[in-house]
Amino acid sequence: MLLKYFYDENLAQASYMVGCQASKEAFIIDPARDILPYIKAATKEGLKIVGSLETHIHADFVAGSRELAKQIGAKMYLSDEGDNEWKYENIEELPHQLVKDGDEIMLGNILFQVIHTPGHTPESISFLVTDGGAKTEHPMGIFTGDFVFVGDVGRPDLLEKSAQKEGSADKGARDMYGSLSKFKRLPDYVQVWPGHGAGSPCGKSLGAIPSSTVGYEKQVNWAFKHEEYDSFAKELLEGQPEPPKYFGVMKRVNKVGPNFIEDMEKPKRLDDISVLNRNIKEGAQVIDTREAALFSKEHIQGTMNIPFNQAFTNWAGWIIDYERPLYLLTDPNKLEEIQKTLQSIGIDKLKWYMDVDLAIRMTAELESYHDITPEEAKELISSKDAQVVDVRYDSEWKSGHIEGAQHIMLGDLPDRLDEVPKDQPLILQCGSGVRSAIAISLLQANGFKDVHNMLGGYARWKKDMK
Amino acid sequence: MLLKYFYDENLAQASYMVGCQASKEAFIIDPARDILPYIKAATKEGLKIVGSLETHIHADFVAGSRELAKQIGAKMYLSDEGDNEWKYENIEELPHQLVKDGDEIMLGNILFQVIHTPGHTPESISFLVTDGGAKTEHPMGIFTGDFVFVGDVGRPDLLEKSAQKEGSADKGARDMYGSLSKFKRLPDYVQVWPGHGAGSPCGKSLGAIPSSTVGYEKQVNWAFKHEEYDSFAKELLEGQPEPPKYFGVMKRVNKVGPNFIEDMEKPKRLDDISVLNRNIKEGAQVIDTREAALFSKEHIQGTMNIPFNQAFTNWAGWIIDYERPLYLLTDPNKLEEIQKTLQSIGIDKLKWYMDVDLAIRMTAELESYHDITPEEAKELISSKDAQVVDVRYDSEWKSGHIEGAQHIMLGDLPDRLDEVPKDQPLILQCGSGVRSAIAISLLQANGFKDVHNMLGGYARWKKDMK
Amino acid sequence: MLLKYFYDENLAQASYMVGCQASKEAFIIDPARDILPYIKAATKEGLKIVGSLETHIHADFVAGSRELAKQIGAKMYLSDEGDNEWKYENIEELPHQLVKDGDEIMLGNILFQVIHTPGHTPESISFLVTDGGAKTEHPMGIFTGDFVFVGDVGRPDLLEKSAQKEGSADKGARDMYGSLSKFKRLPDYVQVWPGHGAGSPCGKSLGAIPSSTVGYEKQVNWAFKHEEYDSFAKELLEGQPEPPKYFGVMKRVNKVGPNFIEDMEKPKRLDDISVLNRNIKEGAQVIDTREAALFSKEHIQGTMNIPFNQAFTNWAGWIIDYERPLYLLTDPNKLEEIQKTLQSIGIDKLKWYMDVDLAIRMTAELESYHDITPEEAKELISSKDAQVVDVRYDSEWKSGHIEGAQHIMLGDLPDRLDEVPKDQPLILQCGSGVRSAIAISLLQANGFKDVHNMLGGYARWKKDMK
Amino acid sequence: MLLKYFYDENLAQASYMVGCQASKEAFIIDPARDILPYIKAATKEGLKIVGSLETHIHADFVAGSRELAKQIGAKMYLSDEGDNEWKYENIEELPHQLVKDGDEIMLGNILFQVIHTPGHTPESISFLVTDGGAKTEHPMGIFTGDFVFVGDVGRPDLLEKSAQKEGSADKGARDMYGSLSKFKRLPDYVQVWPGHGAGSPCGKSLGAIPSSTVGYEKQVNWAFKHEEYDSFAKELLEGQPEPPKYFGVMKRVNKVGPNFIEDMEKPKRLDDISVLNRNIKEGAQVIDTREAALFSKEHIQGTMNIPFNQAFTNWAGWIIDYERPLYLLTDPNKLEEIQKTLQSIGIDKLKWYMDVDLAIRMTAELESYHDITPEEAKELISSKDAQVVDVRYDSEWKSGHIEGAQHIMLGDLPDRLDEVPKDQPLILQCGSGVRSAIAISLLQANGFKDVHNMLGGYARWKKDMK
Repeated sequence: MLLKYFYDENLAQASYMVGCQASKEAFIIDPARDILPYIKAATKEGLKIVGSLETHIHADFVAGSRELAKQIGAKMYLSDEGDNEWKYENIEELPHQLVKDGDEIMLGNILFQVIHTPGHTPESISFLVTDGGAKTEHPMGIFTGDFVFVGDVGRPDLLEKSAQKEGSADKGARDMYGSLSKFKRLPDYVQVWPGHGAGSPCGKSLGAIPSSTVGYEKQVNWAFKHEEYDSFAKELLEGQPEPPKYFGVMKRVNKVGPNFIEDMEKPKRLDDISVLNRNIKEGAQVIDTREAALFSKEHIQGTMNIPFNQAFTNWAGWIIDYERPLYLLTDPNKLEEIQKTLQSIGIDKLKWYMDVDLAIRMTAELESYHDITPEEAKELISSKDAQVVDVRYDSEWKSGHIEGAQHIMLGDLPDRLDEVPKDQPLILQCGSGVRSAIAISLLQANGFKDVHNMLGGYARWKKDMK
Repeated sequence: MLLKYFYDENLAQASYMVGCQASKEAFIIDPARDILPYIKAATKEGLKIVGSLETHIHADFVAGSRELAKQIGAKMYLSDEGDNEWKYENIEELPHQLVKDGDEIMLGNILFQVIHTPGHTPESISFLVTDGGAKTEHPMGIFTGDFVFVGDVGRPDLLEKSAQKEGSADKGARDMYGSLSKFKRLPDYVQVWPGHGAGSPCGKSLGAIPSSTVGYEKQVNWAFKHEEYDSFAKELLEGQPEPPKYFGVMKRVNKVGPNFIEDMEKPKRLDDISVLNRNIKEGAQVIDTREAALFSKEHIQGTMNIPFNQAFTNWAGWIIDYERPLYLLTDPNKLEEIQKTLQSIGIDKLKWYMDVDLAIRMTAELESYHDITPEEAKELISSKDAQVVDVRYDSEWKSGHIEGAQHIMLGDLPDRLDEVPKDQPLILQCGSGVRSAIAISLLQANGFKDVHNMLGGYARWKKDMK
Repeated sequence: MLLKYFYDENLAQASYMVGCQASKEAFIIDPARDILPYIKAATKEGLKIVGSLETHIHADFVAGSRELAKQIGAKMYLSDEGDNEWKYENIEELPHQLVKDGDEIMLGNILFQVIHTPGHTPESISFLVTDGGAKTEHPMGIFTGDFVFVGDVGRPDLLEKSAQKEGSADKGARDMYGSLSKFKRLPDYVQVWPGHGAGSPCGKSLGAIPSSTVGYEKQVNWAFKHEEYDSFAKELLEGQPEPPKYFGVMKRVNKVGPNFIEDMEKPKRLDDISVLNRNIKEGAQVIDTREAALFSKEHIQGTMNIPFNQAFTNWAGWIIDYERPLYLLTDPNKLEEIQKTLQSIGIDKLKWYMDVDLAIRMTAELESYHDITPEEAKELISSKDAQVVDVRYDSEWKSGHIEGAQHIMLGDLPDRLDEVPKDQPLILQCGSGVRSAIAISLLQANGFKDVHNMLGGYARWKKDMK
Repeated sequence: MLLKYFYDENLAQASYMVGCQASKEAFIIDPARDILPYIKAATKEGLKIVGSLETHIHADFVAGSRELAKQIGAKMYLSDEGDNEWKYENIEELPHQLVKDGDEIMLGNILFQVIHTPGHTPESISFLVTDGGAKTEHPMGIFTGDFVFVGDVGRPDLLEKSAQKEGSADKGARDMYGSLSKFKRLPDYVQVWPGHGAGSPCGKSLGAIPSSTVGYEKQVNWAFKHEEYDSFAKELLEGQPEPPKYFGVMKRVNKVGPNFIEDMEKPKRLDDISVLNRNIKEGAQVIDTREAALFSKEHIQGTMNIPFNQAFTNWAGWIIDYERPLYLLTDPNKLEEIQKTLQSIGIDKLKWYMDVDLAIRMTAELESYHDITPEEAKELISSKDAQVVDVRYDSEWKSGHIEGAQHIMLGDLPDRLDEVPKDQPLILQCGSGVRSAIAISLLQANGFKDVHNMLGGYARWKKDMK
């Protein structure tokens, strides 16, 4: 048996390739939408990908199972657990097999046993792997998806929050409690290969360790420390971060099936600034992906700034309107990577792009904004009645904020623009100055003029105001 | 005034940007289809491209004037000379102006005077440039297109040969004689900026110097040395190389208008070798662009090898069927460049591509062929009655060849496959071993099995057989 | 706690970063010589590398501990176990701490316990890790170095073979038996993070799984299945592959300390083929790193071909003379990577390089060799008394070979050139045609002229001769 | 004959390759220090570079003649005109030939005639080229170096200004007047290939056209319009820009010979921020090459910002101390290009570099500065008595400036830091905000704290203050 890890740092999402060297075949567990890395890895090892295993209907990224099925004929092994709301749709024309608790799947001489482990979602399953190639009857590890993470378990409240399914969180917590009992009965030495690592919004305290073991989690994971359900449920549901807005979309997309990459139109290159400007005037959705420092210095009026860094996926998911065509102002050398990143969360309507440096040079009148220090901010508040707008998460806001500030979480800003005062200077503030830069660009693109970015955010404010 | 040279080494084709720093505007003379280099250069200099000037309807590459007109609104200045067969079509919806001998065009304070200079083609015009910005009434230079080259003049026989327009060569020669008289009347110091450099099949002895002067050409160019028409015409028409097959296509495409790049489908990525193989079985046109040494060692059955080097444009134009979809086996990092190269000569039906390394690794049974030395070739001829097939140009064949060899010029091979003997070992031979490698791949793709590439070609044969 | 895997595919060597998010510090376990990846990863996570832990004196790659100590002041934690022959030297001026069985090292609130686990080498230690940050007294995992691998244990015979330390293999086997007893007493759930993966010559059957657990290895690893020492020792010592020649060098280098990268001369660029040729005539050691298919087609006389692929490290270690200056003919874009690869096994005398494409173009007379099929080989043997030279490993040779073939393992060929017949045509053969291509280049560089590479190696011979 | 243009955009410097296809040899005219482009181009055309021709001892870049002589044995053809102060030194060990007016040099069948054309410098020569290969006795063109440019002639005052050679400007003007008489006697049709294009400080109004002709320059170039010497000299010497400080160094370097690239130490990689900081404290010269927008947002205290763009060469030459070791904070992918650029003007003491992103991330406390609008500047002047420092050229300052501003040209700032007030807020200003950003970084690195960059420079001030 061969095992290879794949990890998407933007999504904190893990997928895996398991290969049988004897049969020269491989499975992908929870594949992402960009299937090329799997194909390259398998081909390099002389393996053919014959199947993909999905632990559940993902809410945080577009799954690649259908893409693998369409492109290379890999059979999809999909959960048949959960009620009618949790059934995969439109899979008839693709090679697939629905699986239930207790089912067994062979890959050469490697055995995958299906275990129903609801909680995160009703249809969640795990795959217990036994390597017959090593002539053993001892299971080697378990792919847990969003069931058990390193040091945490999957949150059952995602859908209640992002897709407004009322009551689903409580039901999920109870399911999870039951599933953990099953988990406890596995041998201590079994490895745990989870679906996410530190930073994923699918849980609240995921560890920064690639994998764990059943025995270790039983000793250390908070979820195994509760003697009874209620205290467990309380700890489980408490303090979970706001799920990104796009999670609701993802869940639906993965259920009914995303577009196939090859069927999607490729983005076209724009060469003329006047065409761009005409589109901006007509309300086009234009994102500039440069670093905030460059954008603040000079940018084209009417464009928003979501810098292409590790937080891009998250804020793109919150801010970009999935239903409207998207224009990118970007370094063309990064276009392919940015497009893949957008596609990873289902933003498929990228229609146009333009070389941002060309666009800047072609433009006579550029817009800009200034950074200001907390001290300058304070002066601006007193001298010109400036309004501070704090765009941090609820939990951050609750643990301390600037007096008199208005709180609108960055992800909510597109829908709450009319709450922002139009007749006062604005000071945008977050934790460090990164999110507030995105917020400023949003405001400028919507016609706000007198905007300032507070350097260092609330952290520096507290320090400087001492 | 600002002048910038652009040179496409594959096509030996020159285009030019002339800019007026006062009006911040630029013209492109004889733009190629890939307009990005012009846009970048103009933007860098703070200029806006407002027009393109075409010296004639090109036969050797797809002109970029319509692309510039569509994408950035640049006005096309096109020849209105020549009879009805030589009129641009489908230009109504694009910004354009038809020009005739004597017309004047201003770019800021730079003057372009139109001079009708038929010969290469009936509608050929030249543009005499005078820089008013330097406050002079002295012309600085002339854009001659395919009229006068450095050391040569444009051939008038292209269309007769590639598009079977009978009698057009003689008429063109007479026109050329007249046009040269006009040229002689220009001041000696005027620079000559031609449309092609050494290696272009649009003439036979083009110099490897970027530009020349009227006075120098009058002294040195063979075309000015004839006292009377007949000897001139004789030298002009003699010894012109076979025009590539695709020239006829190009002429038509440039007359009626090529596809716009943004309207064309983008090639799709193939991930699965079985899909490729199925397509090959159904007769798909598949080109492998690797170096011949790699292809000869191992390749997928049914694929042809046109290595992506400087000769690619020429042989792709001869061999690829414009009407059928095209599959590429290639290094994906080179795809964009290869596609641009194909598009530069109007091969627009690139539908699919596959990473050639992945494809090779995914394939169990690969095909190959061997190189042999002239000595080994000789042995093969005597011991096994092998047939030598010489794929060089007529002129090369006529100046010496291997006894008993069969002559089929590489460009004609696709149409003459049934003349190649099927029951003998074959030895493919050219001048150095490069063209014969392409020929072998063509034969293998069409089912010929016992094929050998002669190392070093006829040059080495002669040397070794001494 | 944060854990990150690093894996060098050429060396099949694993190293690890463990970070404490509280103290913002990190350790590197068994760092490789190229320290930049560790620095980048740590910096990205906001950590500072403060120490490196070495499990033992490595024999298969140059350790990076001293480099980290010199460049960024990271303290080296080194084994103080083993007798006098196994002591690190020249460490006085670098930050370091010698550790013994039972010692404890803290990184923020992460505990590393030192366990003496001799066998592979006498001074081998393992590090048992307990994450106090997760408020547990349960160990999470153990860094085993070359003690326990996934499915195998470290071989104790390396030094006996590569450094001629007689009797060390038996002593090591006995040590290993004792160390495994200690290992068995660890909790089942403890993860095992080994120093090598599949393909390393430090063991014979390493698994293709990144990590394992104590409990799983106890169930499945062959080494835990023996009830008594003798049968264990027999299985342990049997069938171990030839250790690469350079292992002896590495062991010494890691003991006394390698050169620091910044003190080493950088390779110079050669621009003139005549300078290269003069050096070749004077016996310079010149390696051409292109693919064998390109080299076979044309190469410069007197150069050897070790293609830069995954096997490069191994064959470079066998064939390159560490004591002599090295010239590379290569793609300059790959120079840096090739140099790092050479440095990873201590080949530090890279003095010159030349762009191989320029060199080829500058050369009038190039050398080449042909591939032949098994059938053609057979004919050559009977018609011209050709001698087959088989360059596979002993174990491959023993399990079947061509009758009449001469056996010289590729790694031994440089020292046994005088055994190769000079007056017969030679047919070089290995398992697939890859190693024999290197062998041919070695022979050609040493003046052998009539050489042939057998396509597909012994595998195809057997198939075709059926 | 083959002619190829090379153009260094940073230096606005032209060099040329002339090849004879018959003898397969090439000359380089006025080669730059980076010889690889010439070698690649020649090799591609199947030519060997056998010589380099220098028009004069250059003052604005390091000539590559000695490098070509040392690396590939190309013979240097150097001027033997001018008095003792203008003789090349240390050329004994390199292949060379001193040439004088009237000498003839053959390259295959191409003739180069030496013409002494003093003026820019006393030893300046030009090369008149006649292509015997085209069987003509008519010269094709002339390489004029810094004698005649397109639309201008070389300035004779460089050395008087940059190397304090008193009286040399007048003498040079007189020489130039005589040399132009010679030039006028050449045939009109002869092409003029000059040593510089638009933007070079070696003249004041060079045209943006690659080449010209004798006849055209006689008609259009201002220098040919004077009937008598005095008015010519007046126009010639008037309004020449300040020659960069490094010109004096260059002249000496090219006279006595620069370092050979292969003998120079390669820069070492710094991995540890504390080492960098220690060096900064000890006064190390550290340049950060990022864009000003990124530097202004956050940078390491004690570092200067010279962004790596087209103006880099110029400001590096003014600001970097040639005699002190240089540290770079940069994107490592650009290191090679930056180093070549520094070497092109003789900055050879690059000792260390560090990945600027790593360095920034490793640093807890970063420095920054703010941009301010002219309006904010005005407020700062009135409210806090801020001092404007104008860093433009003299000519710009003279044609208008902000009242009360202090004028120190950016290039002089390093030597005039003590004139800048330390107890007032400072507003740095130039023409557009680009040079003032460099100036601010210089001030911050020297301990000035309260500094502001005025956006848009004087241009915007004028516009906004209307």
